[in-house]
Amino acid sequence: MKTRAAVAFGAGKPLEICEVDLEGPRQGEVLVEMKATGVCHTDAFTLSGDDPEGAFPTILGHEGAGVVLEVGEGVRSLQPGDHVIPLYTPECRECDYCLHPRTNLCQAIRETQGQGVMPDGTSRFSLDGKPLRHYMGCSTFANHSVLPAIALAKVRKDAPFDKICYIGCGVTTGIGAVAFTMGVEAGATVAVFGLGGIGLNVVQGARMVGASRIIGVDMNPAKEALGRQFGMTDFVNPRDVDDVVQHLIAMTGGGVDYSFECIGNVQVMRQALECAHKGWGQSCIIGVAGAGQEISTRPFQLVTGRSWRGTAFGGARGRTDVPKIVDWYMEGRINIDDLITHTMPLDDINRAFDLMHAGESIRSVIHY
Amino acid sequence: MKTRAAVAFGAGKPLEICEVDLEGPRQGEVLVEMKATGVCHTDAFTLSGDDPEGAFPTILGHEGAGVVLEVGEGVRSLQPGDHVIPLYTPECRECDYCLHPRTNLCQAIRETQGQGVMPDGTSRFSLDGKPLRHYMGCSTFANHSVLPAIALAKVRKDAPFDKICYIGCGVTTGIGAVAFTMGVEAGATVAVFGLGGIGLNVVQGARMVGASRIIGVDMNPAKEALGRQFGMTDFVNPRDVDDVVQHLIAMTGGGVDYSFECIGNVQVMRQALECAHKGWGQSCIIGVAGAGQEISTRPFQLVTGRSWRGTAFGGARGRTDVPKIVDWYMEGRINIDDLITHTMPLDDINRAFDLMHAGESIRSVIHY
Repeated sequence: MKTRAAVAFGAGKPLEICEVDLEGPRQGEVLVEMKATGVCHTDAFTLSGDDPEGAFPTILGHEGAGVVLEVGEGVRSLQPGDHVIPLYTPECRECDYCLHPRTNLCQAIRETQGQGVMPDGTSRFSLDGKPLRHYMGCSTFANHSVLPAIALAKVRKDAPFDKICYIGCGVTTGIGAVAFTMGVEAGATVAVFGLGGIGLNVVQGARMVGASRIIGVDMNPAKEALGRQFGMTDFVNPRDVDDVVQHLIAMTGGGVDYSFECIGNVQVMRQALECAHKGWGQSCIIGVAGAGQEISTRPFQLVTGRSWRGTAFGGARGRTDVPKIVDWYMEGRINIDDLITHTMPLDDINRAFDLMHAGESIRSVIHY
Repeated sequence: MKTRAAVAFGAGKPLEICEVDLEGPRQGEVLVEMKATGVCHTDAFTLSGDDPEGAFPTILGHEGAGVVLEVGEGVRSLQPGDHVIPLYTPECRECDYCLHPRTNLCQAIRETQGQGVMPDGTSRFSLDGKPLRHYMGCSTFANHSVLPAIALAKVRKDAPFDKICYIGCGVTTGIGAVAFTMGVEAGATVAVFGLGGIGLNVVQGARMVGASRIIGVDMNPAKEALGRQFGMTDFVNPRDVDDVVQHLIAMTGGGVDYSFECIGNVQVMRQALECAHKGWGQSCIIGVAGAGQEISTRPFQLVTGRSWRGTAFGGARGRTDVPKIVDWYMEGRINIDDLITHTMPLDDINRAFDLMHAGESIRSVIHY
């Protein structure tokens, strides 16, 4: 079949809207009609050429929502008409990782996914007879895409595609870090470093689980009002204090129970660890640091009871947990609408990148 | 009263056996007749002058066992005749730390203990009318010592003092790191870096909780036989392999579930983290690094599911958990006897330090 897609032909080049060829689903695969997709920093990172694993030409996008059109041989978990969210972290429920109680990092198709192909080693997308790479196993910047069935979360049909697509990455990363990876409990004190899209989702995740005090840390004073809208109780601008770690320890009487780094800055990761409470404070790295950068601290920080941890996709097991987050949105427990600041058709997708780089959007969503 | 003690008059000087003055217990305090004491690296560290908090003259020693002779006003948890192990990490059961489920770092008397005095700010020890400092709240290198009641674990009376004194520090640090801090479960794969006294206790702790594979890592090939005696199933000498991290990952099919650093070397701490399994591996720092040294890694190690943690006194809540470890010893679940390689009277205590520095002892015990 033919479908429209935004194709990335090379690093640093604008995406081009093309009519591409798409083969139907093979064994274990599913054809999905994408209804909406978010545009994420990770797409921009790969498009920039800085991603060492990035390869072109490819169809980017990993934050989608759509409808199953056709299932390949052997697919029993889904049928045409089902509403789905693509999962860049799949859930096969059979590998060592899926069977381990402490991780969501299913490895079933990791290698081929990293190479931009389907599990059988081939691509379903092509243009003028030449294959195009899949991206993160999703390629949601195409109006239709083929995905492995294990990489699709089936979600309720009354949820709006143009909102729940954001659950495919940013929402789940932030809320899941709180709820799944760290298991923040009611009454906890939480610090959130960086109030971008991820940080705001951490804030509202902490509010949802009943954290008592949610301290946002950001150098941009304009973030204060937005943070408070999502449940932040205190705001600290590091530019206004001598030492942000000592300031947080003082204002919390010893440090926070949980801290989250949502920027990707290794110095901030250290601050997030060191503002955690002696004895029990836990710090979670969400942000992605630049290649080769390292985190450091004195081991005394850990010996005196702090834990240093990290999360990917919010610790969510996609097929199991993503439908729960859709429920939380539909029940009004979390707010996605106010995080989606811009919407546009596929033809305008390059504007979504421009808005992101200019810091004008929290999230732009493309509707097909 | 008068009692005999090994007094440290200054950094780097041999201890001197003196008859010192000891005041009786004040409110909340207990007079203990010490029956035995281990000589630990921490005593040597302070004696060397490298300990920034070390102060002289003082009576060192923190790994004792003895009998209660007299209790001060208000002490209801102990009575004369009780057998006790002094606790350098007390357990008041009232402070924020004691009431938190995730830490053993009772802070009730931390400040005065660090200053070498009792909670009321004074010392019970003196010589020629001049006060001597207490050490780690214990001063077990004195035949009699006064301690806060919250810093004494009451233990069964049939346990031999000259063995269970080692539970006052080394045994609990190693076994507790496995059982209390990390909660290693049956079937787990464990790596232990450094097979000294702490490392061997980690090994036997892992055996006790049912770990399937216990890999010891040490540069000294002579440690292999000893490690196997305590439950080690595999031995790796880093000198025999190209890259110890890659070697451990290969031999375990992806990394270990738990790793323990028992040396105090920040490079080894990094190796211990990085040989932990992607997704769920947890690494625990036990060793004490040199002043100012830092640990480092790429944040990707944590984002892909490893946790970096630490432990002090094995996560044991002393009054609650130390009696359990005494039980484990008396029930034959753990082996202390073979770790105590030398015993001697107080008069020979300087020889215990010589044996330690020469690497000839695992643990020397002084009997009074």
